[in-house]
Amino acid sequence: MTETAGVNALERQAAAVLGELIEPGQLELYALVSQYGAYEALQRLCAGEGSEALVRTVRRNLHGSDPLQRGAALLVDGQRCGARLIVATDTEWPGRLVDLAALTVDDSGAAPPIALWVRGPGRLGEVCERSVAIVGARSATSYGTHCTVELAAGLAARNWTVISGAAYGIDGAAHRGALSAAGCTVAVLACGVDRAYPAGHTRLLESISQTGLVVSEWPPGSGPRQHRFLIRNRVIAALARAVVVTEAARRSGSRVTARRAQELGRHVMALPGPVTSAMSVGPHELLRDWEATLITDAADVIAVAGDLHEVLSPAGPAVVRGDVPPRDHAVLSPDSLSIVAALPGRSSLTVEQLAVTCALTPRQVRALLPELVMRGLAVEHSGGFGRKAAVRG
Amino acid sequence: MTETAGVNALERQAAAVLGELIEPGQLELYALVSQYGAYEALQRLCAGEGSEALVRTVRRNLHGSDPLQRGAALLVDGQRCGARLIVATDTEWPGRLVDLAALTVDDSGAAPPIALWVRGPGRLGEVCERSVAIVGARSATSYGTHCTVELAAGLAARNWTVISGAAYGIDGAAHRGALSAAGCTVAVLACGVDRAYPAGHTRLLESISQTGLVVSEWPPGSGPRQHRFLIRNRVIAALARAVVVTEAARRSGSRVTARRAQELGRHVMALPGPVTSAMSVGPHELLRDWEATLITDAADVIAVAGDLHEVLSPAGPAVVRGDVPPRDHAVLSPDSLSIVAALPGRSSLTVEQLAVTCALTPRQVRALLPELVMRGLAVEHSGGFGRKAAVRG
Repeated sequence: MTETAGVNALERQAAAVLGELIEPGQLELYALVSQYGAYEALQRLCAGEGSEALVRTVRRNLHGSDPLQRGAALLVDGQRCGARLIVATDTEWPGRLVDLAALTVDDSGAAPPIALWVRGPGRLGEVCERSVAIVGARSATSYGTHCTVELAAGLAARNWTVISGAAYGIDGAAHRGALSAAGCTVAVLACGVDRAYPAGHTRLLESISQTGLVVSEWPPGSGPRQHRFLIRNRVIAALARAVVVTEAARRSGSRVTARRAQELGRHVMALPGPVTSAMSVGPHELLRDWEATLITDAADVIAVAGDLHEVLSPAGPAVVRGDVPPRDHAVLSPDSLSIVAALPGRSSLTVEQLAVTCALTPRQVRALLPELVMRGLAVEHSGGFGRKAAVRG
Repeated sequence: MTETAGVNALERQAAAVLGELIEPGQLELYALVSQYGAYEALQRLCAGEGSEALVRTVRRNLHGSDPLQRGAALLVDGQRCGARLIVATDTEWPGRLVDLAALTVDDSGAAPPIALWVRGPGRLGEVCERSVAIVGARSATSYGTHCTVELAAGLAARNWTVISGAAYGIDGAAHRGALSAAGCTVAVLACGVDRAYPAGHTRLLESISQTGLVVSEWPPGSGPRQHRFLIRNRVIAALARAVVVTEAARRSGSRVTARRAQELGRHVMALPGPVTSAMSVGPHELLRDWEATLITDAADVIAVAGDLHEVLSPAGPAVVRGDVPPRDHAVLSPDSLSIVAALPGRSSLTVEQLAVTCALTPRQVRALLPELVMRGLAVEHSGGFGRKAAVRG
């Protein structure tokens, strides 16, 4: 074992035990690990450096045991169930998770994860690059289940990864839909990746871990506790490029996830349903309050969340997963790109509205639009600008 | 008969015959009548003054008869079936119709009406003051029919007039819903107000004319021709304060009406439904393209279209129809009012977004907000401003 590998092993052991000692999302711990690495953060906490509460938590949960030995034991537990622990310096770490740091205004469990247990053949960062989280009620209706399966299958068929939480109802339908199209799906759990929770999803989780990924912040063996679901939900929102709520009750947890996703800058979408259905009240609340875009199928989702390339090519991308599709907009400036991304597909925005959306001045927007129009990326209509009318195919 | 009444009688005869000679919505005729009155406009056209096409149309359709005699005969026909002809100088003329003049960029049948035949006890301008048009597909589903009846009944129960087009499907459900709540409903026809079209709605139209109003631009006896429905639709949009699409097929006429309503500055709303239903594709298109606000019931509609007073008072207005409710915002400036109107009920907008929405500068918005906050009309949250959280009741 080389010196570097040795340091990595210690880092990993420290990250493993920190995840056991301290519930994820803790801002102080995240700041310590970001600054010093997991190993030194652990040493400092064990030496009594840090806030009184955090030091006390670490001491209480260690109750005299050696932290690195415990970390090593957790890694062995992980290996036994086919799980690996990844940290922010690993290449498969999803860069998007750092966005959570911007949210963390108080210590409410919203900080980015410091490590993730993953089980399955996928490389987490890669499979989440083109991903949509589908979330919703456990007590889904047959309508919601049907639409969710269709949506997930449609996304998977176009090489989009479907992320969800493996719960009964909408979550399960999302995973099954993706699996039914031989697509990649990621289950983010509020318990260890070796635990089948809910028990009725034992075989589903097994299938997911064979082709996609089962992910958790908690070490193998951890049970699903009530408060962990909320902490877990932030990871679902942060991993995905977009979040779709297909069914949810009034003021549900899905709405919280949607709002979190919005704060993270993710696209938030909702599937409508009958106004007579209590399970469509959640999506309708989001739509009524302009917090989500209405979608009815996978094509709608990709029109919102997809790369410009995909939107421009009606047949969908002909790339295999992991490849980077060629981009028509490679030579555009970031400001121009932000305008292209903001152009609505079937309506139009005024220069002033585009300026607000893109955080540019109207003057800047006016200067950049002619090139976009010339290149066929924008079109002027109804007193504003939209995406080129024909590109929806 | 006094001289004034005599002039009015001639004006009315001229307006009646002009409505028979020339299809409504004609911009040149509207301009002539606005400038000279119907009587002089008719005289000028008969004398060959005006565009060649319009003069030719008048001559062809008159084929030698005396225009004022024909107008007088039409008014007698109207009296026989209980209808009166109202013109822009009548007190019951709905002021809102003039908004159509702003739309008329070409001569495509979009100009304001010059006269309307009305049948029923209501005063058109008054009953339309607090009104919502409900439009949608003839081939409505049982879901759409159910929701439309409920919506119309809910609006009628809160003293809102329901306007629609008396067609089968959604239109019929809208009228019936309003009648079921003993409310006022207005049917705008594409044929004479004495014609029962569709025939299956003979009794429905009779009921409407007994308590509400049956309205048409075409004189008694006129048949419903294909092109008249589109011309008629602009009147529905213009009469109402808001337009709700409850069910419509993909790219339907209802969408055209909704777009027209939007251009007129009316609130446009849509009722969602199952994404598996072809009849909800129309509403979903409007919602997806941000051209309509999602509503699920009458309370949602009133939250968008109602006076501030009604929105602030959860129990709804305690006024009888025709009364003007007291307004909390009577002493606010127009700029402040526009901000209050723009404040979202359950989310928030930044100062910059409010500025764009209200066509003010951010500086102006910042100057006006403190008073609104102090008066409890605005509340700061989530980095922006919204309507006071409690006011939704």
